[in-house]
Amino acid sequence: MTVTLLPMADPQDAACCTPLTRETIDADRAEELSRKLKALADPTRLRLVSIVAASDGEEACVCDLIEPVGLSQPTVSHHLKILMEAGFLTRSKRGTWAYYKLVPGALGQLSQLLDVTASR
Amino acid sequence: MTVTLLPMADPQDAACCTPLTRETIDADRAEELSRKLKALADPTRLRLVSIVAASDGEEACVCDLIEPVGLSQPTVSHHLKILMEAGFLTRSKRGTWAYYKLVPGALGQLSQLLDVTASR
Repeated sequence: MTVTLLPMADPQDAACCTPLTRETIDADRAEELSRKLKALADPTRLRLVSIVAASDGEEACVCDLIEPVGLSQPTVSHHLKILMEAGFLTRSKRGTWAYYKLVPGALGQLSQLLDVTASR
Repeated sequence: MTVTLLPMADPQDAACCTPLTRETIDADRAEELSRKLKALADPTRLRLVSIVAASDGEEACVCDLIEPVGLSQPTVSHHLKILMEAGFLTRSKRGTWAYYKLVPGALGQLSQLLDVTASR
């Protein structure tokens, strides 16, 4: 038995309101949802999101993201940009460094859309 | 506040046991999870999964999947193969037609891995 209670991150979001499995999703929502999934569907980006999410306040300095994934700063910044554009992270500059913060609810919303059993 | 109780589809699965946001995932698990997300990260495949999931018994004849997505049968079969290989659907032949069934727990497992709030 499955019980899921998840807040919606943004009720205005085109992809927000139709769980994938409660009723069939239309082409526009499938397009929107696939864009978000594509942004996450990369091993480096998953690790970056995971590190940010596990950090204090769900926020991490870019300086602490480079070594764990073993890539150059430009490459890491490129992946972080994709995650920002998809709405998973926000960025703020403090002093020399950029800090990346998890957008509250963004992963939970995606999770809810995918969960077949929760919507029954 | 978020409460999620989800069964694991396959405890042996390499990607099964580390929620993305409870602790940082390692490179192997990120690779495995990204493969599953890539399989879903396509508008047609999302619609196919959605149609199958919304069908009686979470199973649909390929003959009922072609018209809704507006693609040729070979193209639809190609997408269905990717979804099978990623563990989201199984296929059985009955008479003339192939039937595709949702793998119980496969989407729920993915959902659980993505859910930042559920793991806190």
